[in-house]
Order: sequence, then structure tokens, then C-alpha cells
Amino acid sequence: VDDVVPRPLDAAAIAAASERQAHLLKPPGSLGRLEKLALWLAGVTGEPRPALQPLLVIAAADHGAADEAVSAYPQAVTGQMLRAFLAGGTAGTVIADAVGAELLVVDAGVASPPATDGALVTTGLCPSANLAYGPALEPPALEEAIRTGRRIAASARARGVNVIAGGEMGIANTTPATCLAAWLTGGHPESLCGRGTGIDDAGLARKRRVVRAALGLHGHVEDPGEALRRMGGGEIAVLCGLALGAAEQGLGFVCDGLISTAAAAMAVAMEPAILPRVLAGHRSPEPAHGALLDHLELEPVLELGMRLGEGSGAAAALAVIALAAATHREMSTFEEAAVAGPT
Amino acid sequence: VDDVVPRPLDAAAIAAASERQAHLLKPPGSLGRLEKLALWLAGVTGEPRPALQPLLVIAAADHGAADEAVSAYPQAVTGQMLRAFLAGGTAGTVIADAVGAELLVVDAGVASPPATDGALVTTGLCPSANLAYGPALEPPALEEAIRTGRRIAASARARGVNVIAGGEMGIANTTPATCLAAWLTGGHPESLCGRGTGIDDAGLARKRRVVRAALGLHGHVEDPGEALRRMGGGEIAVLCGLALGAAEQGLGFVCDGLISTAAAAMAVAMEPAILPRVLAGHRSPEPAHGALLDHLELEPVLELGMRLGEGSGAAAALAVIALAAATHREMSTFEEAAVAGPT
Repeated sequence: VDDVVPRPLDAAAIAAASERQAHLLKPPGSLGRLEKLALWLAGVTGEPRPALQPLLVIAAADHGAADEAVSAYPQAVTGQMLRAFLAGGTAGTVIADAVGAELLVVDAGVASPPATDGALVTTGLCPSANLAYGPALEPPALEEAIRTGRRIAASARARGVNVIAGGEMGIANTTPATCLAAWLTGGHPESLCGRGTGIDDAGLARKRRVVRAALGLHGHVEDPGEALRRMGGGEIAVLCGLALGAAEQGLGFVCDGLISTAAAAMAVAMEPAILPRVLAGHRSPEPAHGALLDHLELEPVLELGMRLGEGSGAAAALAVIALAAATHREMSTFEEAAVAGPT
Repeated sequence: VDDVVPRPLDAAAIAAASERQAHLLKPPGSLGRLEKLALWLAGVTGEPRPALQPLLVIAAADHGAADEAVSAYPQAVTGQMLRAFLAGGTAGTVIADAVGAELLVVDAGVASPPATDGALVTTGLCPSANLAYGPALEPPALEEAIRTGRRIAASARARGVNVIAGGEMGIANTTPATCLAAWLTGGHPESLCGRGTGIDDAGLARKRRVVRAALGLHGHVEDPGEALRRMGGGEIAVLCGLALGAAEQGLGFVCDGLISTAAAAMAVAMEPAILPRVLAGHRSPEPAHGALLDHLELEPVLELGMRLGEGSGAAAALAVIALAAATHREMSTFEEAAVAGPT
């Protein structure tokens, strides 16, 4: 993506936030990750004392790979869940609501999109083709999906959002995400394939065959955009564009689980300079997710054994980032509280 | 404590909550720890669909062990922080406020208590004696401190609180807490002693000598109440009483770091049946904290490298418990959302 110009973190804001942290009413370093998250948010926003203004994006798409029976759920669930996201009542939307995050739902190629009067971002994208037999996306679809993600980031920034959590929905989408993880990390399909929503042993064996076949067909490509086109999907490409867009707009991007992190990792492969704006929200038990976190050298905020996707883990991490921002903003200094420092 | 009758978790509420979880709009088990926390809260409250009503208690006391120069901060800081807790602006109080927890501050034997018009629970307790030369507390002081904790739990329950997070403040108090951890776990002082608020190498060597001396003097006792009296302190005994009180009142108790967990572990040593109501909020880098979590076989909710105490880690864990309760309460079922289940 030639015209993405990632914004570096604001070093002056980080220095000012660091100076403030040194005066807050606690031994230096004693809030651990909360202190690092406060500095990250300062660097992301350019403000020495930032408040979190979060947005959860849930991008949904269907996948030709679902034909291979690699998911425990039927394809119709993607469209049904799209409706549920708009109605509220899903894990990700309940958590987003609890942490005060705005919500945006994107149809990035759902096979049976629901009739809905909710605020749905539409793209005109179709479900991806079966990556075991050919490229998942046509070049114009990839471009449109990435453009959609970047556009969402731009309008989010205009509304005052400063951190975007990237969630997704798409029956069978751990299969393309695992292919991308294998392509990025060089890991072996046998060890990277997990059970996703909970497939049985036979399903897992099928999934491994599909991932091997896809890598046999597409694994030789060297350009990350081309790899994403061949082994990705609509929602993965939208989230990739969203991570790129967050970086070019001066926002932060919080990864959810395997699929969301694969999308961010592809964005990093395209534009390595975006990495400082990418945060790992949590660690899921999917083996390919751990491989991607290692590949990106990211330490997840939460390790709660969550493996749902739909933005649920990223939204939960927003709760911790909010505490980091609250302590950084609202704690007294030693001077203000008239408390003695170290002897 | 002869008359504590711990209430077991409510098995019927757990079964009903479990049944609800099985119908919520997600693959079974996919919310990981959030699901387990929702069931725990159901068992604690006896309600199949509970809401979290949290209280953060910060108990503060001074310690004769501070004479041994085992802390990086002067003793006056304990009383100054007591005033700061009441004013707000400390890490634990900011986080408590962010998660909607009520706050209660207890003077459990502060050397120089501040003049304050805040809502302070007073006890008339004095600072503990230096445990390197004799027992830390006189028998009546231990009894009064435990009674105070139990009384706070009883009145919290009467106000509708269902989970209490236990925080503390007391210059030098990682030293008695490490002694108690060594007594409970049989661990060696050399490996259990950490740097607390950030002492240097010489301070750490002094701390190890004090812990060895205290264990030489008191380590032979077999009764946990007597061990707590000899090697504890006012705030540790109040938190021990609070954990016992939470169990007898049918509430949950969330441990903070080393000191708070040592207090809960002493309560468990006195009354093993309280353990199901005790939750580990987080893991601090203090080695004795890890030893206590292993001893209690508790898996912490958060691992953020926090080592401040003052209830900050326990309060942060309340944010995750609140998300567990919110998803459990507010998510739709597959039926309500008209989404298909597994094929």
C-alpha cells in the first residue's frame, strides 16, 4: 500500500508522560504494565495526560474455505451474528458497552447479510473463494477491503476516537488466518492449526489438509499484499486496512485473537513502521496466535484463555488500558498529596 | 477463630449459571476465565445471574520492623498515605472509582494517623512491635484486628456488597508478610525476600536477616493464629479477619499482592473451608507472593507486573470480574438471537 504514511509515536508526549509517572504517588515502576500502557497511549495520542476514546470495529465475512467443513458451525451463522452485533447481546458488544467503547459493524463479504436497520458499514464485497483451490480474493476486492479499513480509521479520528480495537466474525476464518500465520512465521501447519470454535479431531485433520494445500498453492509468494489476497478474506483485509489506517491517522490499534492479530501482522509486513501503534489485547489458546505474538514480539495485556474472537478479548483489554489512563491522569503526585519520598 | 462458620459456595446457583452459560451466544468455553469468574460470582452470591457489588478495603498499619531499615520509605509515609486514600488520588482509589467499587479505609495501627474528616474506620490499635525481637502483636490486639475485619464484612453485606477486595498500606510490611509466607510454605527466606517498594542490595540483605531472625524466634509455632500474632501486623490481621468475615457472610474476597494474600492464606490456614470464596486478583513480582499463590493453588486473574499494594491489583481484577458478570448477565442466548448452533 504505497501511500500509507505511518505516524511515529510522539516522543515528546512519552517523555512528558514519563516525567509525570516519576512524580505520581507510588514507587517508580510499581504499577508495572499500567505505566507502560499509559506511556503508549501518550505516544499514540501525542498528549502527555491522555484519556482513552475507544472504538470497537467488528468486521464480518464469509469464506470459501467453509466448504471444507473446517468449522463446527454452519456458514449461516456469520450473517446471523452480524445481526446480533447490531442488536447487542454478543460478548464483544457487551464488553464494548461496559468499557464505554463506540461500536462499528462492517459487512466485509457476508454470504447472507441480514435485513437490519442498525448502523452497518457495507462494502459490496462477496465471500472469499476457497483458498485451497485458488486465490481467496480478486485484486479489486482486496483493494476495496483495505480502503474500507483505512476510511473507517479516518472517520473515527475525525470523531475523536484514539484507539481502535479490531474484532471479526467469519465461519471458517481461523483457517485463512492460520495460513497467513504460517506464511509469516514459517511455522508448520500441523503445530499451528487449532480447534477454532471447537472442531473435533476429524475436523482438525481436514483443517490441516486445507492449510497444507493452501500453502502449497500460495506459500511461495513474497509480497505480503499478494499473500493476503490469496490466503486472506474480506474481514481480514478490512482489519489489515484498519491497522494501517490507525497508524496513518495517529491512532492505536488493539488486536483481538488469531484472526485480528494475523490481519495486523500482515499490515506490519506491509508497513513495519506501524508496529509501535499495535498492541496485543490478549493471548488466545490458538497455537497460531501465540506464534504471531512471538513473531511481532508483542506481550499481550490479558491472558484469560479467551478464544471467541468478535473483538471480545480486545475489548476486555480496553478495560485495562482505561485503568492505565485513569491512574496516569487522576493520581496525585507526591507533592500534591504531601507524602514523603524514598529515604 | 472458633465461631467462624464459612458459607460454602451455592451449588444450585453455580449449576443454574452453568446452564445459562451453555446457552449464551458463543462456543462453549470460549470466554475462558470470564466464564469461570461468572460461575464463581454465582456461587458466591447464590444468584444465577449476579451483578458485581464491590468494596475495596484498604487497611493501614505501622510496623516495628521498620526500625530495621527494610523499606525504601520512611515510616511517616503510612499515615500520609492514609490521608491520601481518604482524599482519593492514589492508584487503588482511582481504580476503585473507575470500577465502581465502594471504598473503606481502616487505621489498623498507624504510628502518626492524620487529622482527617474522611470516613476512616478506627480501631485504637498501635503499631506492631519489632518481630525480630518478640511477638508483633499482643493477644488482645490480634483479636481486635480480626474482629474489626469480620465486622466490616458484616456491615458490607448489610449494604449489599458481594465482593470485597483487600488492600493494605504499611511501611515495612512485606517483611512480616514474607515471614508468614515462609511459615506457611516452608520456603527459604533467601529466595522469598523481594525488594518491596524498591530497596537496594544492602536493604535486601537486612530484610533477609530480619526474616531469618523472626523465623528463628517464631517459626516453631504450629497454630496459625499464634503465627499471625507473632509475625503479622495490624493491617494483616484486619485483612485476615476480613477474609474470614467475607466467608462467614457469604461474600467473595479478592486478594491484592503479597501482604493481602498472606493475610488470606493465614485465614485459610485457620479455616480451610473459606478457600472457595478467595480469589487471586493478580500476581506481583514479589517471590513470596508467587509462593503463596502456589500454596493456595490459586490462578491470578491478572499478571501485569504490578507491585504497589494499596489494593491496586485487586481493584484492577474487579474490572475483569465486572466484565465476566456483564457478559454472563447481558449476552443473548442462541435462541434469543436466532443464531444456529454447531452442525
